[in-house]
Amino acid sequence: MTTTTAPTTPRPVYFDCDTGIDDSLALAYLMASPAVRLVGVGTVAGNTNADQAARNSLELMALGGHGHVPVAVGAREYRVNTFSGGVPAVHGDNGVGNVDMPPAGRAAEDRTAVDLLIALSHEHAGDLHIVAVGPLTNLAAALEADPTLPQRVAHVWVMGGAALVPGNISPVTEANIGHDPEAARIALAADWDVTIAPLDVTMAHTFEETHRQALLASGNPAAETVGRMLDFYFDFHVPEYGRRCSALHDPTAAALCAGGVTPSVAPAVPVDVDDTHGPGRGQLICDLRGQRQAWHDRPGARTRVVLSIDDPVADHLVEVLAR
Amino acid sequence: MTTTTAPTTPRPVYFDCDTGIDDSLALAYLMASPAVRLVGVGTVAGNTNADQAARNSLELMALGGHGHVPVAVGAREYRVNTFSGGVPAVHGDNGVGNVDMPPAGRAAEDRTAVDLLIALSHEHAGDLHIVAVGPLTNLAAALEADPTLPQRVAHVWVMGGAALVPGNISPVTEANIGHDPEAARIALAADWDVTIAPLDVTMAHTFEETHRQALLASGNPAAETVGRMLDFYFDFHVPEYGRRCSALHDPTAAALCAGGVTPSVAPAVPVDVDDTHGPGRGQLICDLRGQRQAWHDRPGARTRVVLSIDDPVADHLVEVLAR
Repeated sequence: MTTTTAPTTPRPVYFDCDTGIDDSLALAYLMASPAVRLVGVGTVAGNTNADQAARNSLELMALGGHGHVPVAVGAREYRVNTFSGGVPAVHGDNGVGNVDMPPAGRAAEDRTAVDLLIALSHEHAGDLHIVAVGPLTNLAAALEADPTLPQRVAHVWVMGGAALVPGNISPVTEANIGHDPEAARIALAADWDVTIAPLDVTMAHTFEETHRQALLASGNPAAETVGRMLDFYFDFHVPEYGRRCSALHDPTAAALCAGGVTPSVAPAVPVDVDDTHGPGRGQLICDLRGQRQAWHDRPGARTRVVLSIDDPVADHLVEVLAR
Repeated sequence: MTTTTAPTTPRPVYFDCDTGIDDSLALAYLMASPAVRLVGVGTVAGNTNADQAARNSLELMALGGHGHVPVAVGAREYRVNTFSGGVPAVHGDNGVGNVDMPPAGRAAEDRTAVDLLIALSHEHAGDLHIVAVGPLTNLAAALEADPTLPQRVAHVWVMGGAALVPGNISPVTEANIGHDPEAARIALAADWDVTIAPLDVTMAHTFEETHRQALLASGNPAAETVGRMLDFYFDFHVPEYGRRCSALHDPTAAALCAGGVTPSVAPAVPVDVDDTHGPGRGQLICDLRGQRQAWHDRPGARTRVVLSIDDPVADHLVEVLAR
């Protein structure tokens, strides 16, 4: 029902991330994709702290030949929740599966991720795509700093939420939305078009050992490095899937932005975020009522919720990263 | 994975309802089922007001040869929410599709539904089954009036909630739980075993025109009358299903209690109810994480959430009602 056509000229992309192993896979993909021109990276607390996420991004970008693209540290804390220090059990002590990368040879920008995003929105006014795969803290702050931001953004691609499947940090709450529900609520209520990839689709697609081996053998230094990171990440997923593999959270949002995969079910529907302090705190609430007979867009809804992708996401990632 | 064996001797059942067209189908079924002995009916505000629900129950029970079974009016209001007056668009002005039944020839008990339930729990101590298909207001009040109640109740069968499907009064909230979340929270936290049939399964099974015709031709006056009520209820379901038919909300809970249908997926998991005043108010939160590889019970969980039933529920209802 929905088509995301591959862009004819590379899309300028600002990548907002908490790098993170799956963030690293997404970042390596965005660097390698001919459909994308990565123009800036901002970091946020999440899988690891925002400074470590910047360090990881800088190092991976050096390996990926993107040492010229600005990286800026963003929010080190959430609006209301307290950052817990990350999830070393999932992403390793350093956020990237305890893989050591060569020093990047440069530091993050002096400006914040918010300032970088706003500057890029002017530089690429009307064309800028945002791929946001961490808590939406920076996006909310940028919207507050400059309410005209949405006018200059072409589209926002988000990994977050759980629509019709269980959450991953509570029965109904996914980590990116759940860590900063107040920010997510602001970001998803802004005057821009959003495509969101919730756990419904990001857990349905997996990266298998064969895919990982293809990265290790790719000859692409960034891809090879991500292949090594995934060794750690695969262990974490064994209880969920019963085998060594990983979900494809952040890379799915990246692949959607690049038009490399097309949603098969992705209705635009009203969404809300539970920012109470009750048992549903942090839930992305998607109004999927009345969709039994045929998936369809709800009038006025600006957030497209990707519920399924028939295209093989992992195969596509490998194809781009090992070309 | 779960079996609900048909009882060898009829189970004494207290039926808590807001009669209601699907309540009527459930009630007619409970009267007709050889696996059940209906020993009392209490009403609550919901599909219609509690007094009308009692009138409807009394009249249908007279038609079904159960003029001797006590009917008591329960809660006319919810703990926090305000009763809106019912849903005439769904259940007709009188709650039963504007069908007129002969006068019952008797009135509801002087005692309340709470008093009736507690009395029945003593009379059938250890054996009493509760089938609750409206807001759980009476159950919560009974638990507060007599905290020892669960010791004398064999099992509680509930229609309510939406686990992995959209709600019906909000994107995430089903009416029975959503009308009185505070009561639902109390009822589901009590020290008894509960089996709950959420929209996941009650929307998946439908009662079709052929089933309705079988009721009309059954020779069972209560079943015939419910067949007439369903004419109205079928209209309401056309936008959802694209044809005249109905969901099987309340009858599913009744059929589960009678052991007439067996859940195919029904893990016992932690549940909670959102009783905040946020966008998730009234949501039944079922913790279904970690069930990807195989459905399984979570240690200590006392609420079994019925996610699917392979048995044909409507066929079974007709079989019992038109025997």
